[in-house]
This record gives sequence, structure tokens and C-alpha cells, in this order.
Amino acid sequence: MPTYVTLLNWTDQGIRNYKDTAKRAEAFGSAVQKIGAKLLNVYWTVGPYDLVALVEAPDDETATAALLQLGGVGNVRTTTLRAFGREEMDRIIAKAAG
Amino acid sequence: MPTYVTLLNWTDQGIRNYKDTAKRAEAFGSAVQKIGAKLLNVYWTVGPYDLVALVEAPDDETATAALLQLGGVGNVRTTTLRAFGREEMDRIIAKAAG
Amino acid sequence: MPTYVTLLNWTDQGIRNYKDTAKRAEAFGSAVQKIGAKLLNVYWTVGPYDLVALVEAPDDETATAALLQLGGVGNVRTTTLRAFGREEMDRIIAKAAG
Amino acid sequence: MPTYVTLLNWTDQGIRNYKDTAKRAEAFGSAVQKIGAKLLNVYWTVGPYDLVALVEAPDDETATAALLQLGGVGNVRTTTLRAFGREEMDRIIAKAAG
Amino acid sequence: MPTYVTLLNWTDQGIRNYKDTAKRAEAFGSAVQKIGAKLLNVYWTVGPYDLVALVEAPDDETATAALLQLGGVGNVRTTTLRAFGREEMDRIIAKAAG
Amino acid sequence: MPTYVTLLNWTDQGIRNYKDTAKRAEAFGSAVQKIGAKLLNVYWTVGPYDLVALVEAPDDETATAALLQLGGVGNVRTTTLRAFGREEMDRIIAKAAG
Amino acid sequence: MPTYVTLLNWTDQGIRNYKDTAKRAEAFGSAVQKIGAKLLNVYWTVGPYDLVALVEAPDDETATAALLQLGGVGNVRTTTLRAFGREEMDRIIAKAAG
Amino acid sequence: MPTYVTLLNWTDQGIRNYKDTAKRAEAFGSAVQKIGAKLLNVYWTVGPYDLVALVEAPDDETATAALLQLGGVGNVRTTTLRAFGREEMDRIIAKAAG
Amino acid sequence: MPTYVTLLNWTDQGIRNYKDTAKRAEAFGSAVQKIGAKLLNVYWTVGPYDLVALVEAPDDETATAALLQLGGVGNVRTTTLRAFGREEMDRIIAKAAG
Amino acid sequence: MPTYVTLLNWTDQGIRNYKDTAKRAEAFGSAVQKIGAKLLNVYWTVGPYDLVALVEAPDDETATAALLQLGGVGNVRTTTLRAFGREEMDRIIAKAAG
Repeated sequence: MPTYVTLLNWTDQGIRNYKDTAKRAEAFGSAVQKIGAKLLNVYWTVGPYDLVALVEAPDDETATAALLQLGGVGNVRTTTLRAFGREEMDRIIAKAAG
Repeated sequence: MPTYVTLLNWTDQGIRNYKDTAKRAEAFGSAVQKIGAKLLNVYWTVGPYDLVALVEAPDDETATAALLQLGGVGNVRTTTLRAFGREEMDRIIAKAAG
Repeated sequence: MPTYVTLLNWTDQGIRNYKDTAKRAEAFGSAVQKIGAKLLNVYWTVGPYDLVALVEAPDDETATAALLQLGGVGNVRTTTLRAFGREEMDRIIAKAAG
Repeated sequence: MPTYVTLLNWTDQGIRNYKDTAKRAEAFGSAVQKIGAKLLNVYWTVGPYDLVALVEAPDDETATAALLQLGGVGNVRTTTLRAFGREEMDRIIAKAAG
Repeated sequence: MPTYVTLLNWTDQGIRNYKDTAKRAEAFGSAVQKIGAKLLNVYWTVGPYDLVALVEAPDDETATAALLQLGGVGNVRTTTLRAFGREEMDRIIAKAAG
Repeated sequence: MPTYVTLLNWTDQGIRNYKDTAKRAEAFGSAVQKIGAKLLNVYWTVGPYDLVALVEAPDDETATAALLQLGGVGNVRTTTLRAFGREEMDRIIAKAAG
Repeated sequence: MPTYVTLLNWTDQGIRNYKDTAKRAEAFGSAVQKIGAKLLNVYWTVGPYDLVALVEAPDDETATAALLQLGGVGNVRTTTLRAFGREEMDRIIAKAAG
Repeated sequence: MPTYVTLLNWTDQGIRNYKDTAKRAEAFGSAVQKIGAKLLNVYWTVGPYDLVALVEAPDDETATAALLQLGGVGNVRTTTLRAFGREEMDRIIAKAAG
Repeated sequence: MPTYVTLLNWTDQGIRNYKDTAKRAEAFGSAVQKIGAKLLNVYWTVGPYDLVALVEAPDDETATAALLQLGGVGNVRTTTLRAFGREEMDRIIAKAAG
Repeated sequence: MPTYVTLLNWTDQGIRNYKDTAKRAEAFGSAVQKIGAKLLNVYWTVGPYDLVALVEAPDDETATAALLQLGGVGNVRTTTLRAFGREEMDRIIAKAAG
């Protein structure tokens, strides 16, 4: 399944309620599962982003639905990147360098 | 086929050779075709970006290969966005609002 | 008819009500039609912009009216670029390189 | 004829040769005229931009050709805005507030 | 009289009330006149700024007073640039290159 | 072992030689291994970053050494974030909310 | 113990209550101590940041917990950097240049 | 005479030759004098700007000529602000609040 | 006494009450005096900053106290730069080039 | 003695020669000592800055000389903040809140 890297920053609301961030991540995990995708991993990070999530989804639509839902709650602002692994990148380079 | 919106800015090299920008766009069109994707449309724009291209590709990999190849030539810097049409967005909202 | 590419970002209000984004796009389509322009296409995108719209309008005025009206509703902030197709660009280059 | 406001910043090359900026503006004036447009006014400015030019052109294409040509010379980087006068804006508001 | 180019962006309040922007510009014109300056021209623009105004004023003070007053109303944020015409710039270059 | 998320952008040199990006990633993997760390995963991404790497290292020092070495080669600019998994974050919240 | 440099900016709330900033820093010192870390030093600074804090903590988790707690109070926004001393850096370089 | 505040940043060239910055400032002082203006004061500063200069000039033209000349040398990039003293500002406010 | 250049921008609150800016500056002058420093000069400026103040203070502490107090009122956001005159800079260069 | 926090970023030159960063830091330490200041501590950091240095100097002049000299070498770009400890800040607050 395609992978997506999502970079998240807490909103003011999100920082104030940092104590339930783990529960919120869990809720996000089940919400994502309900729509056929999978939260591979979520990291709380130190630096320009507060969290980094790895999501697998059957397709771009499902991944986008998952992040749209999360954004609507109001605790985070998200930036999503489609992510290719090594095999996918080999194919991409082969095609690009054709 | 999935659609992609690519926002392009000329590099210094790109601006100096603006005269062959149409030919370069054509070359990009055929290069894209060779790898199974399709340049739906390219617009030269007035504003924060110099060109906006609409690309259809069988999958994210092919789209990425097309833009990687273009970036390697050195005339433009690109930012690519996966783009969903209305039907796709209806499904996405249905999933998100589930 | 001239073409315009509009890059849109949701305001906080826009993200909270993401569920009616498709209906809002439709409403925008009819509003645009009422003033003689045409919403060629709207894409919901993943990346630095939330939506990208392609609008055709008889002239710059009409295009600007359409986006002014949309901005006034408060769900999005817009950046509009005049967009030229290949033929137009050929003429432009001919003139520039004259 | 439609009006365009162009905001210009000198490149390093442009600043070093500031002494011939007036001549360059003149040359730009005649180049613009050759393609059917008109340099209404050019101002050298103190602030975030080094020059502001007001150009009238029969259409967007011609205006874009004029600025493309100027950018290719390498002394300035330009940002062009389509500009509406009061009458045009009255029509635009009438359409938008329809 | 010296000329000034003012670049204006609507605040949220300004966008919501876009319908009375023409009247507001008119009011600005008369307010400017009352203090001895002149609104040469105002353009509504498409791009990084919403309006561009050309103001003539007997001196920098009057120009600054005009824009201070406008800013205080709360519909726009302004950036003002002192603007020199060709003759002024010839003198400036002569002095600089002296 | 602690985890680190590294966000990478190609330099001009990096983009020009995109064809050997996979090999470079492999080389990075072995270089990282030599100093006792592990390249868990590397993704080529579409969006504000060109690659995202997940690195496990016995300690911050080793992780920093790995990225310092990579930066010195000149193909990428990197931003590294220390990343905590769920368990670690539970402990962190417990401590913070103490 | 590992060291961390934290760069802090006051929020609007933080600036309004600048008078109790020293007490807040003290409170932060004891809060940090309660979770096994140590506020080595705090500087109020003149420039792009309002404060710079040096924190020692047994591990990244504890340091992150300390700053998470501080951020939740709402007076500051923080950016934390893992910091290596000379010995650590010698080891890092040795590993990197290995 | 009107006053101008100029904010200056060293270019790479400027930093490398920091040793002759005082002489360069002196040269700037005499150059400014030659065209009828006066370098009231120059400060070398610690923060977002490397120098701040206070220039008095008979008019905007002369001030602009002085800074244009300085920029052309290539050691600094300048931003110039017209500056009003208290009396001027009283008049400005009187006019604005009229 | 050491000199400080402070760059000030009005907050929204500050712009709305622009009419009493001169009085506010006066109040700042006396407040500064009360703590042993001196407001050498304040300029209202046209450009990226709304005011530029020159403050002399017996030491960095007093200067910082003055600007901290001003910031707390809520009309401006300030950036303060330590400023050296020519003699100080000669000494600095002598030391640096030692 | 007053304290200064300096935030440093490597230039391209600095990154390429990362291997001798420790030696360069040492050289900076002795250079600083020669002019009567003291390098209290230098940290190599992971995040928006590559190094953070704590310098004590008899006065602002000496601190500035030290950083000017370092900048001139070309391996780093620096931002220096005057830093107050708790006692100094208590005095500052007392003065500000007077």
C-alpha cells in the first residue's frame, strides 16, 4: 500500500491540551483504520514539527480523507507528503532516466 | 487516471532562455508521454509561479518520475500537488466525515 | 476565453467546515456562471495549497469579480494567476523575442 | 487599454550598473512600444521595490511579452499585477455583489 | 509635487466588506484632498497586493498623514514607497555617479 | 534504540545527479551502519522535502555523526528531529503532567 | 548528562505579564528538577529570542517533558536543540570522518 | 533638512573586508557631503542589521542618490526609511486626524 | 553612554490609536528618563518599521528595562540593536583584526 | 562580565570542512581570549542552528570584535544576543516595573 509522511504542528488549542496527545493519536489510529488505512507509526518530535506520522493507505483518496478529518478537529495543522520506498524509487528513476 | 498540479518557477538559467520555453514544454510533453503519463495542459502564468502544469499519470510513481526528470534539466524548480476532482473529493469527504 | 489559475487555502473557518467543501465549490461554480464566467475545473490538492481552480472568463474583470465574491465568504484566501495556453505563449514569445 | 503594475527589484548585476538604469528604462519604453503596448510611467522607488512601472497593453499577452523580454536581460526580477481602474472596479463589484 | 506609490492589502475586515471598496477609495481621495495632497490614481490589482495607489503630496509629511489616516480605519495594511520620475532619477544618478 | 526523523532537500548538485539518488541512499545506509546506527527507512517524497529518512542510533551522538557525514558530501541539506514513539511519549506526558 | 539549548519567545500573554518572568523561570527550574532534569542556566536575551535556556536532562524524554510542560502554560513558544559539548563533538567527528 | 534612517546588511564581500568598514563609512560620509547631504551618524549594530545610518539630505532625491551610490559599491544591501521627528509627526497627526 | 537602536512596529492596537503616538513617545521618553536612560531621538518612519528610536543608557540592563516596559503596554513590538559609534568600532576592529 | 549567546550556522564552506569544526572552535576560543573575552561554552546543536556559543566579554565592544573576526573567516554566519542572568533580570524588571 502507498505510504504517506505527514508533518504536524500543534495549534494553540493543541498545545494547551498536550496531555491528551497520546489519546488523540490513538483516536486518529482507529479513525484511520475505519476508512481502510493504517497508521504505521507516529512520532512525537523535537524540532520544526511537533509530530511526524507514517500512514499507509490503499490510495491517495483515503490518505487525504484521514488527514482532512484530523485537521477538522482543530488540534493540528498538517502537511502531507506522498512517500516512495526504495523499490518504488528505483522504478521512478528508471522511468525518469529512461 | 490520477491528476497532478505542478507549480513551476524558472531558475536564472530558465529565465535567460525564455525564448525556448514553449519548445521545452513540448519536450516535457513527449518525455511525459514516453513514460505513460500525459501532459493535460500547461499554462504560462503571471504571478508567484511562472508555469502551472496539469499532468495525468497512471500512478504517483510515474508522475514523480516525470517531474524528477524535468527538475534535473535545470531550467525550473517544481512543487507537485496530488489533485482530486469532485467525485474523488466526494468519496474523500464521505470517508472523512464517515 | 482567457484562463485563470486560482490557488486557494482554507481559513480556520474553512477547515472546520471541510465537510461542505464540495457543495461550496458547486455554489462557486454557479455563482461564477451567473456572471458569465466558467469554472473549468476545481481540484482539491495535497501540498502547499488546499484547492486549485481553473476559471475561464470573458475578461479579467469577470474573473476578478468571481474571486472577490468567493473571498468575501470567508472560507478561503485566494491567489489568482492569469494563465496562457501554448498558442498564446507562442505569440507572447514572438512578441518578446521580436 | 488594460493597465498593469509591475514591481521590479534589481539583481546584483542591476545594482552594479545603476548608472544606466534611466537608459535601460527608456530602452524598455521603446521595446514595449514596438509590440503595441505603452509604458505609462516608471518610478524609481525607495522601499521594498527598486522600481514600479505602469504599463498599458492591448491585452494580457502583450503585457506579459514586454515583461518577459525585460526579465530575460538579467538586470531585474519582476512581479506583474493586472490593475483595474475605478470604472472597471465598479463593474467588478457589481458582478461580484450581483 | 512628489509622488508616492502605496501598496495595500485588505485586512480580514477589508475583505468581508469588499463591496464598499470603491466608496472607501473615494472617501480616501477626498480625505487626501482635504490635507492638500492628491490621489492620482488607485488600481485594484490581482496578485500579491489588493490595491496600488499613486498619491501626490506637497511633501513627505502630508503623504504620511494620508496613509496613517487610512491605516487607522482598519480595512487595509499599507506599505508606502517614495517614487521618483525620470527627471528626478536623472538628477539622482548624476548626483550618485557625480 | 532512539529514533530520528531527518528531512532532506536536494542541493542544486543533488538535483542534477538525481539518477544516483538510490545508490547514494544505499551508501548512506552502509555508512550509517559502520558507525553503529541503522537506516530504518528512507522515503523519497513529493512536497516541501525531497526525502525523509528514519534513523535509529544508539545515541544522539551517533545520529548526529551520520547526518554530519551526509551533509558534508554536498548533495543534500538536512534537518534532524529526535523522534519518540508512543511508549516514550506516555512517559514524557506522565513526567510533564506529573 | 545530555544538554539541551532551548530558544524561547514570549506569546502576547507572556509579554503582557513580563513582570513575573523571573518567577516563571524559577517555577520552570523547580518543575524541571521534579522530573530529574536541571535548569543549568536561563538568559533573558536581546534579539530574535526573548530567552535562552540551558537544560541538562538524563535523557531526551525528560528534556522534552520539561519543555512540553512549559509550552502548555501559554507564556512562551519554544524551540529545543540537542547540544553537544567538545568531547561529544570530537567523538561525533571521529565517527563521521571514520 | 529631512532625515533618513538606512538599515544596512553586509554582503559576503562586505563581511570578508570588515576590517575597512570604518574607512568605508568615512568614504560614504564624504561622498554624501559632496552631493549636499550629511551623514549625521552611523552605528555598527548587533542584531538583524549590521549598520544603521542617519542621513540628512535637502530632499529625497539627494538621499536616494547617496544610497544608490553606496549600493553600487557592492559591500552592503540597504533599506532606506524616510524619518520624521516629533514636530513633523505632530503636523502629520494633526493632518491625519484633521 | 552606550547607544541602542530600537526598531518598532505598531500592533493592531497601536495603529488604531495612531493619534496619540506622539504622546506615547513622550511618555516613553519620561519613563526612560526615570530609570536613568535617555531617549536621544525617535523617528516615525515610512517603510518596514513604523518608528526607530535611539536610546542611550548607562548599560544594557537599563536599555532592556526601558524596552521591556514599552513592549508590555501592547502598542508596539520592538527589536533592539546595540549600536556602536565610530570610535567604538575602531576599537572593535583593532581588537578583531588584532 | 556580561554574557552573550551567539547562534551560528555553517556556510557551504563550513559544512564541507565539518571535520575541523572542533579545531576551529578551539581557535575561536584562543582568539577570543587574546582580546580579553572568554568562550564559556560552545555547543554543537541539532536543529535550526549548527552551533550555540556562550561568550563572556568585558563589554559589548569586545564581544562584537570576537564575532566580527569569526564571521570574517567565512565558515559561519552569526547572530549575537546580549544575555542577562537572573540577577540582572531582577534589576531589569525592577527598573521596568518601577
